[in-house]
Amino acid sequence: MKWNLDCSECDFTSLPRGLDTVCPECGSALLVCYANTPAVELKGARSDCSMWRYPEWLPLEDGEVPISLGEGGTPLLHLETLGGENESLRVYVKDESQNPTGSFKARGLSAAVTRAAHSGAEAFVVPTAGNAGIALSAYGARAGIPVTVFAPETTPVAILAQIRYFGADLKLVNGHIGDCGAAAREESAKNGAFDMSTLKEPYRIEGKKTLGLEVAEQLGWELPDAIIYPTGGGTGLIGMWKCFKELRAAHWLDGALPRMYSVQSEGCAPVVRAYTAGDTEVAPWENPETLAAGLRVPAPFGGKLMLRALRESGGGAVAVSDSQMLEEQRLVAARDGLDLAPEGAATVAALKKLVASESIGAGDTVVLFNTGAGWLYRL
Amino acid sequence: MKWNLDCSECDFTSLPRGLDTVCPECGSALLVCYANTPAVELKGARSDCSMWRYPEWLPLEDGEVPISLGEGGTPLLHLETLGGENESLRVYVKDESQNPTGSFKARGLSAAVTRAAHSGAEAFVVPTAGNAGIALSAYGARAGIPVTVFAPETTPVAILAQIRYFGADLKLVNGHIGDCGAAAREESAKNGAFDMSTLKEPYRIEGKKTLGLEVAEQLGWELPDAIIYPTGGGTGLIGMWKCFKELRAAHWLDGALPRMYSVQSEGCAPVVRAYTAGDTEVAPWENPETLAAGLRVPAPFGGKLMLRALRESGGGAVAVSDSQMLEEQRLVAARDGLDLAPEGAATVAALKKLVASESIGAGDTVVLFNTGAGWLYRL
Repeated sequence: MKWNLDCSECDFTSLPRGLDTVCPECGSALLVCYANTPAVELKGARSDCSMWRYPEWLPLEDGEVPISLGEGGTPLLHLETLGGENESLRVYVKDESQNPTGSFKARGLSAAVTRAAHSGAEAFVVPTAGNAGIALSAYGARAGIPVTVFAPETTPVAILAQIRYFGADLKLVNGHIGDCGAAAREESAKNGAFDMSTLKEPYRIEGKKTLGLEVAEQLGWELPDAIIYPTGGGTGLIGMWKCFKELRAAHWLDGALPRMYSVQSEGCAPVVRAYTAGDTEVAPWENPETLAAGLRVPAPFGGKLMLRALRESGGGAVAVSDSQMLEEQRLVAARDGLDLAPEGAATVAALKKLVASESIGAGDTVVLFNTGAGWLYRL
Repeated sequence: MKWNLDCSECDFTSLPRGLDTVCPECGSALLVCYANTPAVELKGARSDCSMWRYPEWLPLEDGEVPISLGEGGTPLLHLETLGGENESLRVYVKDESQNPTGSFKARGLSAAVTRAAHSGAEAFVVPTAGNAGIALSAYGARAGIPVTVFAPETTPVAILAQIRYFGADLKLVNGHIGDCGAAAREESAKNGAFDMSTLKEPYRIEGKKTLGLEVAEQLGWELPDAIIYPTGGGTGLIGMWKCFKELRAAHWLDGALPRMYSVQSEGCAPVVRAYTAGDTEVAPWENPETLAAGLRVPAPFGGKLMLRALRESGGGAVAVSDSQMLEEQRLVAARDGLDLAPEGAATVAALKKLVASESIGAGDTVVLFNTGAGWLYRL
């Protein structure tokens, strides 16, 4: 075995046993830990543009073929317009809408479906705020494994149409993603379908981690000064933070790690609230409401890990309004030719706030994440 | 200057002069011809995944920055399900839906807008069957140059919505792309907007050519036995054929070139008709009708070049019905997790016909092209 599964909270560690979920001791998330540090010579350029071009950092055994639709390899675009009057502020957007199924969820679910398929899963179930449901539908189809998706009935219609199009059994829930999670657990208990919930199995985060690998590679193996990331479940932020520490430990990188900033919607900002209050746990947000479906996560399972990454990195957390997201979405489309998801537009609004508060400024290199395609929320 | 512009039909050749269009002698398409053969040592892997990772094969001067949204670097997916019972038939799909703006049109328009922007264009106009209109809208926005798009009023509504979203001035035409072309020429004559019509300027095809470069690189610098490509305007097919010959001349490749197959809709099959009749020119198709908007091109400007590529390569041309496309679209979504455009689904239907007629068979490696995202035609 190439890796261990280490609990993110307690001292539990084990070899992977197939269909691993959370820590059997304390219920916290398990994280992959590589037994052997990959050699630094491996970091050169490769011809494969998918995230699987980093096999040494991914949970794939020699000779295994991943369940892939070509996820990863998305562009890091320098957007001159976003620096504003501050000429020495360099702003990049990592455009994750160019993934299969139109969002960053493809990375995590490619990794998770790959492992689960190799481990004999016969059915999948997932609660979703939207995009993860599309991705699991598609990767389930690719693996030949049936999928059930629980989504809030408020999910944008184009997202629901895509989930159905890939053949998943879609069940609408009168509630938020937390309610969908309860329904998914019930389904799983009833029929044995494997639960693909965020951080409730250890491989989605490994796929998301490749966001960090790609940013590092695309900046010539130097990290940005700051990262602004929209956090619903937070796997991407947690995954990147994990990745940066792994890369530094393996001497692929040196120097300071980026300041990590979480962005949420004013209508559902449990991480911002906890961060500002100095809490180490995230308390559930009452009555979550936002058009950014991916941010309507009132009680993220990875809340603690997020807060830890924000603090360790010297970053922070910012809430923006839905109307600010819509405004930035429109501006960026007409000015830069990108169709940002509302969650992606939230990072643009957050950048302005962080510049105004002088958390980000002259000389900084900043990476924003557009986690998905805007049309999925609009059509 | 790094390249010349050679007429595809007569002996005309010149250095690029900026805003070049067609051959001033005979009105045929101009093609880029590189003055110096790129060194074979350059073909190694690079970290950039966009099509601009092949600068030596693209019309970009040293120090110039392309107008890019990260186009290219799309996956070549091995679809085991498509080989049918024929186990030694290997079938790949090049998934161009993962480009910016959701289609292969991004490649050509990135190249064309780059050159036109560096040459001082102040406005663009384009006739479109759909996807090229979205791409030009977005790349025009990225370049800060206003865009006018003429599209048939039958164009799928999601495509029209995306064109408007990126800020283009969209004008609907009661007719097909040929009628839109006439309207675009009139607009161009009236206000000087640069006409981006397929093959009416020499750079869209250079962008499309990178389809061929990527297929070669992704197959380890060996070409497939056959390529099945949906041809409306045909720039991709012509561009790849150009590319393969360039690569062979530069000793990047050796051995046989692929058999090139054109696929069209039974409701608009001017190339198939001309190929079958042994003609060297493509006569206009009366009353073109197909739900595959990109194939509703009754009189492609590049018809002659297409016929030449099909014959030189020992390939052919096949028409399939709209209902066959819809059937394959559904099958591939539920079985393989890909949301094919109808034009992409047409290549799957064509593969079955070509296998049935024994044009393609055991031992062949075949590449199909999914030129765009299915949702753009459906939502």
